[in-house]
Amino acid sequence: MSDNLHNQLKIIGKNARVAAQGLALANAQDKRSALTAMATHIRMQSEAILRANAKDLKAGKEKGLSGAMLDRLALSNERVENMATSIEAIAAMDDPVGTLEKEWEQPNGLRFSKVKIPIGVIGMIYESRPNVTADAGALCLKSGNACILRGGSEAFHSNQAIYKAIVSALTTSALPETAIQLIPTTDRLAVGHLLSGLDDTVDMIIPRGGKSLIARVQSDARVPVLAHLEGLCHSYVHADADLEMAKEIVMNAKLRRTGVCGSTETLLVDKAIAAKFLPQMIDLLTKNDCEVRGDATTQSLHEAVKPATDNDYFTEYLAAIINVKVVENLQGAIDHIGHYGSGHTDAIITNNQIAADYFHQAVDSAIVVHNASTQFADGGEFGFGAEIGISTGRLHARGPVGAEHLTTFKYLVHGQGHVRPK
Amino acid sequence: MSDNLHNQLKIIGKNARVAAQGLALANAQDKRSALTAMATHIRMQSEAILRANAKDLKAGKEKGLSGAMLDRLALSNERVENMATSIEAIAAMDDPVGTLEKEWEQPNGLRFSKVKIPIGVIGMIYESRPNVTADAGALCLKSGNACILRGGSEAFHSNQAIYKAIVSALTTSALPETAIQLIPTTDRLAVGHLLSGLDDTVDMIIPRGGKSLIARVQSDARVPVLAHLEGLCHSYVHADADLEMAKEIVMNAKLRRTGVCGSTETLLVDKAIAAKFLPQMIDLLTKNDCEVRGDATTQSLHEAVKPATDNDYFTEYLAAIINVKVVENLQGAIDHIGHYGSGHTDAIITNNQIAADYFHQAVDSAIVVHNASTQFADGGEFGFGAEIGISTGRLHARGPVGAEHLTTFKYLVHGQGHVRPK
Repeated sequence: MSDNLHNQLKIIGKNARVAAQGLALANAQDKRSALTAMATHIRMQSEAILRANAKDLKAGKEKGLSGAMLDRLALSNERVENMATSIEAIAAMDDPVGTLEKEWEQPNGLRFSKVKIPIGVIGMIYESRPNVTADAGALCLKSGNACILRGGSEAFHSNQAIYKAIVSALTTSALPETAIQLIPTTDRLAVGHLLSGLDDTVDMIIPRGGKSLIARVQSDARVPVLAHLEGLCHSYVHADADLEMAKEIVMNAKLRRTGVCGSTETLLVDKAIAAKFLPQMIDLLTKNDCEVRGDATTQSLHEAVKPATDNDYFTEYLAAIINVKVVENLQGAIDHIGHYGSGHTDAIITNNQIAADYFHQAVDSAIVVHNASTQFADGGEFGFGAEIGISTGRLHARGPVGAEHLTTFKYLVHGQGHVRPK
Repeated sequence: MSDNLHNQLKIIGKNARVAAQGLALANAQDKRSALTAMATHIRMQSEAILRANAKDLKAGKEKGLSGAMLDRLALSNERVENMATSIEAIAAMDDPVGTLEKEWEQPNGLRFSKVKIPIGVIGMIYESRPNVTADAGALCLKSGNACILRGGSEAFHSNQAIYKAIVSALTTSALPETAIQLIPTTDRLAVGHLLSGLDDTVDMIIPRGGKSLIARVQSDARVPVLAHLEGLCHSYVHADADLEMAKEIVMNAKLRRTGVCGSTETLLVDKAIAAKFLPQMIDLLTKNDCEVRGDATTQSLHEAVKPATDNDYFTEYLAAIINVKVVENLQGAIDHIGHYGSGHTDAIITNNQIAADYFHQAVDSAIVVHNASTQFADGGEFGFGAEIGISTGRLHARGPVGAEHLTTFKYLVHGQGHVRPK
């Protein structure tokens, strides 16, 4: 059985490698047509997709999945339509492959160009949301990468149905049918094979899901991983902030959606304006059912504030709970973020440009925001079309990862008989 | 003892992390001055460096190191001067940190900028050449990264002496003295600690040395690795090549220096010109003491040709031996390179622009060359100043790695009170 599985995966790996060679040379129009066909086929097969999803939902309820998990798993006509329009948006974007990044000439007349090319084969391991099957497949295809998808077992039937639509679209296209492959088993051993690189056919693994999934992938992978760890985001209200703007931004940053990685978990407030700002801010938060945990100063400014522990400042709540801390000054805020933050997204609210510039420079996070909500941490809001995730690593890609970040490059050297002197 | 070592390395890691914070905010002029001081101090201390090197050479001879290894280890007045001028060249380059890569505005008025920043702390593990101590230290400093160096035991005294000069320069500078640190022990356990990331202080490891070193680093590292594997480079003489140009390029590509990674190991010749080109080419090679191994056709064209085995085509000789194979056509050459190559550097020699463009597109190597020697695979020749190595991986950096590639980026978001709609 396990031998069987290994052979099955080896074939998937080989198919992916061959597809990657074809995809790397595919022209932009062929990729665009294939993506448009994918959207069409998903719409055409929406009934089958919803039927499969109902099966998964029923099994999920029986298994006792949480409400949040069932919500992530659930599809509707609207959500299927969103999948299709998201693929169309990816189709409409500029093709990153072949883009000239740089071009220069050396004094000896040798000319160089640096062009974007696909990475090769991307392995994607994800949990409940079935739309990832469509999104990840489309982003990999747009960037000329073959992909091997491994969805969560709880979304098994939904993923299969979506994948069926994708394949039927690919067969009508000029691209290899195996450009996108879904591992057709819930056998957990398959993940291990994927992580060990399937006999050198996988160039990169992208995990998307909860902490335990990411941790397993990072510890077991023998190929590079583009990982999304925590989003422990901060909003800092500086002494020179417009306090009305600050209230609006903080409310949005914390409560627009509490379950997204760009939601603010800790509010830092400059001590110069704490007494004026915090009572109103905390009123607003608590009136909107947000629990507030604070340091001693914050507690002294509002009776609803519960004490925050050191551990609270390290916690990504993904819920209607916020930590509040009064800091000495700009540097105090930067130091707090450096110590407790996760390098995801952090914001300053101030009308003082010098303070904003220093914050931008000194905060070492993928996204550093001035006078806006941390919830803009999203590939769509950045104009990247869809995103395959938000990278919290420092290498290759950082922040929202769209099609253009699923590329690498090569150097083309143009000579006229150049030889290198001794 | 091992506890002691671990504590010692923990302190080195902490120092590096603190230094990295300072370096990330250091201005271009302070870094330039520190580099210039490093060059000066290396010149001032050249006698001590040469004395230390003599000690290493003596020990190396006693240990029976090969002539090639002793040559890599040996310093001279000229080589010390080259170290200093190489650092000065790095000092003179544009500072990559803070460079604006991109800037755009979304329809909602939110503005984005993408700026280059340092990676953080880089661990460098290398073998015999002591100049790496100076080069790697200078490149990391230029790019705003703190670095932890671990040189080969055979160059221990040389590295210590060079490092002493570097530190004496850093103490006169505005930068942290611990911006560059050298692990002061030959204990092999230190490498293991470095590979496991020194309690999360190392962001990236760069190994530089032989195959076994790279293999160990890749299998044991718990942090991302920027590795340089083999340079199995090809030169392909196309049917429409200028044969005089081809002879000159092939001679240079193979024999200018046989021990560098960009040297050509296999010559591919289009069958249309094989009978005309190969006899002269092989004459030239053999007259210059290059052994030629070839397929049946090549053997039939010149009596000096020995048979090439399949394994020969997979071998990076780094010596005066060349494989020759006659290929059917352009696609045959591309297929051979795809199967046997290492994705390092491959060249086509042709006056046919369409063939050259297709070769550029279809060959999946870091560097793809037209009408020039593969020996141009070198950061200096690319205009990157010095290089820390040539990456054969596909992620983050590919090809020659200079200061600008030792960076990552962050996004700065500029709002005017923007909140994200539901």
